[in-house]
Amino acid sequence: MNKQQLFENIIRKQSFLCIGLDTDMKKIPPHLLLEEDPVFAFNKAIIDATADLCIAYKPNLAFYECLGIKGWMALEKTVHYIRENYPDQFIIADAKRGDIGNTSKMYACSFFDELNMDALTVAPYMGEDSVKPFLLYPEKWVILLTLTSNIGSQDFQLTKDKNGERLFEKILKKSQVWANDEQMMYVVGATQGKIFADVRKYVPNHFLLVPGVGIQGGSLKKVCKYGMNKLCGLIVNSSRAIIYADNSKNFTQATRIVTKEIRRQMSEQLKKIR
Amino acid sequence: MNKQQLFENIIRKQSFLCIGLDTDMKKIPPHLLLEEDPVFAFNKAIIDATADLCIAYKPNLAFYECLGIKGWMALEKTVHYIRENYPDQFIIADAKRGDIGNTSKMYACSFFDELNMDALTVAPYMGEDSVKPFLLYPEKWVILLTLTSNIGSQDFQLTKDKNGERLFEKILKKSQVWANDEQMMYVVGATQGKIFADVRKYVPNHFLLVPGVGIQGGSLKKVCKYGMNKLCGLIVNSSRAIIYADNSKNFTQATRIVTKEIRRQMSEQLKKIR
Repeated sequence: MNKQQLFENIIRKQSFLCIGLDTDMKKIPPHLLLEEDPVFAFNKAIIDATADLCIAYKPNLAFYECLGIKGWMALEKTVHYIRENYPDQFIIADAKRGDIGNTSKMYACSFFDELNMDALTVAPYMGEDSVKPFLLYPEKWVILLTLTSNIGSQDFQLTKDKNGERLFEKILKKSQVWANDEQMMYVVGATQGKIFADVRKYVPNHFLLVPGVGIQGGSLKKVCKYGMNKLCGLIVNSSRAIIYADNSKNFTQATRIVTKEIRRQMSEQLKKIR
Repeated sequence: MNKQQLFENIIRKQSFLCIGLDTDMKKIPPHLLLEEDPVFAFNKAIIDATADLCIAYKPNLAFYECLGIKGWMALEKTVHYIRENYPDQFIIADAKRGDIGNTSKMYACSFFDELNMDALTVAPYMGEDSVKPFLLYPEKWVILLTLTSNIGSQDFQLTKDKNGERLFEKILKKSQVWANDEQMMYVVGATQGKIFADVRKYVPNHFLLVPGVGIQGGSLKKVCKYGMNKLCGLIVNSSRAIIYADNSKNFTQATRIVTKEIRRQMSEQLKKIR
């Protein structure tokens, strides 16, 4: 999916919501544990209840890997189900990979060829040759970790060099030589607040993937105030607040109510760019 | 496995070699493709040919993930095979994971509980709370990316702050508050040469995992000169030079010859610490 298509989906659906499929056997409604594949059954229900309200899904790889072979099967089925039934959805593998060239090449093959994802989150620490193999796939996206939503983001990401340039700024600058805004996005956590304005100085036109709204405490309004651009430029993720809104048999009702409310707020924000 | 046991294995076997199981269907001897599980068949042959000459194996997760479910099955079988037949081997999952706390917790569960690995490579970019969940397992190890062996290691890892402290030094310093040398190791690429001496200023007693000897061009002698400590303190990895030494039907013969030569060189180096 290219940038223009992504933007068109956002306008048509009045939403720039990505739903994180952090599916945890310990948290899903207990009646689903009787299903043959509880993880897929849960994902399918969440997807059916929300696909008209969001533009992307983001399976978090850790939650599938933890279940070994069964987890991979559930992941493959989930991606296939979205592709078959909701072809306008953008699918992000939240895997935060990054390794030496020949290894990154194998990861690219996993996520883009085998799993047919649209995008992959990638860690920048190992530099250019760890990222480049992911950029060989047209209309597939690298989403580079830049400013993450967790407390530990303070440990290294804000480190200033002798000219006062912070590490995340260096990453934004350098990585633009590797790819343009049709292949690269950046992770900027919703908890980072005003720093969105600093990020936009470097990447005014790029899409940003924004985790941390909801349970982690980020504010949608603030993110939009400092981060939105003319083509929206934001994909805001929510995981736990949506998928674990309830764990009764009718759990998708609560999920749909929560999701509709987020979509309503997003629709308000989108008025600013019309 | 604890640090003392690791050291005892090194002395007994006169080797601090780790063999990287970067098993690639396109590179293994063609006759193995007729096997039911070619990846496992290859790994088993390599392990049987080398287990007396090395102290660790390091499956590189990308190479297994790329094959989807079959890859995970081959990985599980490989780890199980090592545990059953060569219980003195240290098994490292080269996965370079690292995510927000609740996700890292799931990865820890995958690699330490489910797969029963001894150690996991972890990316430092997201800071303390992304690493801590891996430290809750006694006698399991975090191997933190510090100075990697690739060209891109120059992009960010050497960035100096206003006091002249480089990013990798900051990581070495901060991470010592998170865990001690019984739970933490560091990745330092063999291609980094004299910088090993700088690394040792911060972590004189820790084990270092050293990739990049062999195809990537790092020198064992140099690594030992600047990086070895009283308890050896080095686990040197070689992957392609060993496992793809030959691809005839008798490929393990060449693998064994190459591995023996590396062990001979390691045994020489170990004389210095007796």
